[in-house]
Amino acid sequence: MMKNLPLSKVYQLLEPGPVALLTTSRHGRANVMTLSWHMMVEFEPPMVACVVSNRNHSFAALRTTRECVIAIPAVQLGPQIVAVGNCSGANVDKFRRFGLTPTPATRVAPPLVAECFANLECRVADTALVNRYNIFILEVLKAWINPAQKLPRTIHHCGYGKFVVDGKIMKLKSKMR
Amino acid sequence: MMKNLPLSKVYQLLEPGPVALLTTSRHGRANVMTLSWHMMVEFEPPMVACVVSNRNHSFAALRTTRECVIAIPAVQLGPQIVAVGNCSGANVDKFRRFGLTPTPATRVAPPLVAECFANLECRVADTALVNRYNIFILEVLKAWINPAQKLPRTIHHCGYGKFVVDGKIMKLKSKMR
Repeated sequence: MMKNLPLSKVYQLLEPGPVALLTTSRHGRANVMTLSWHMMVEFEPPMVACVVSNRNHSFAALRTTRECVIAIPAVQLGPQIVAVGNCSGANVDKFRRFGLTPTPATRVAPPLVAECFANLECRVADTALVNRYNIFILEVLKAWINPAQKLPRTIHHCGYGKFVVDGKIMKLKSKMR
Repeated sequence: MMKNLPLSKVYQLLEPGPVALLTTSRHGRANVMTLSWHMMVEFEPPMVACVVSNRNHSFAALRTTRECVIAIPAVQLGPQIVAVGNCSGANVDKFRRFGLTPTPATRVAPPLVAECFANLECRVADTALVNRYNIFILEVLKAWINPAQKLPRTIHHCGYGKFVVDGKIMKLKSKMR
């Protein structure tokens, strides 16, 4: 179902700024949070920076285990994405409550999210800015795409529950990779 | 024409991941580049991380002067945005060539871009990750919005000249700020 995506194409998923999910696993228990503060840092191997607040339950798991999965949901998952962001993994099994299916990854312990059209297995590569800004630098080790989800439209968070959904595609002759 | 935007609202502009422009000024000469690798780091005062490659002409200006403006263009500026990204300020006055109007900022030397619906005056707050990843941490000192540009639609870069334009707005009951 999930197919390998060449690492050189990972930036095409994250650069547009979609709302993403981030999974962690600690003490044999998986958790998932909503993530909008991320950016590409390098094309290949793909490096990604993200902010995981130390107020998030996922923070300790990410800092301690140094592994996560970034999963990218399409617009149809909007209600679940928001619900995941509105509660804490400290007292809720969010996969079970919101009908998300954890699926084993190959390179890291945190699970993929089966309902997402893309999943990126990541390890923490640098924690130099964690204490000051909660910024984690991740390396993407393995990327998965679900070819059954055709032309997925992502959502972008504009604050306070307002999201903008992907619209038209525009092609312009760019030399930008 | 440009109106003050409260700093607490800046994240609503950058979090959705729009393609932005970044201006610098050095030796009395302004330059502008296209920027898609950016993310919010803190709400207020707004802190932003961005990657400016050391292969960009703007890199030296940003590192030396520690000032820039992040300008956010609407979709109508698509052709100029791409043209700005396809050439180097080393040998082109990109404002003049692409019909962009530099306008004085109030807190920093680099100019605002008059045609953009939002402009963020920034200073470099942290360079700890510049050498390793070309990551600059910026603080937004002053933010401007052009109320004459109603409901601007931004664009998001998906690689190689493919962009997705903002589509429908979706409201979901989120506690996420």
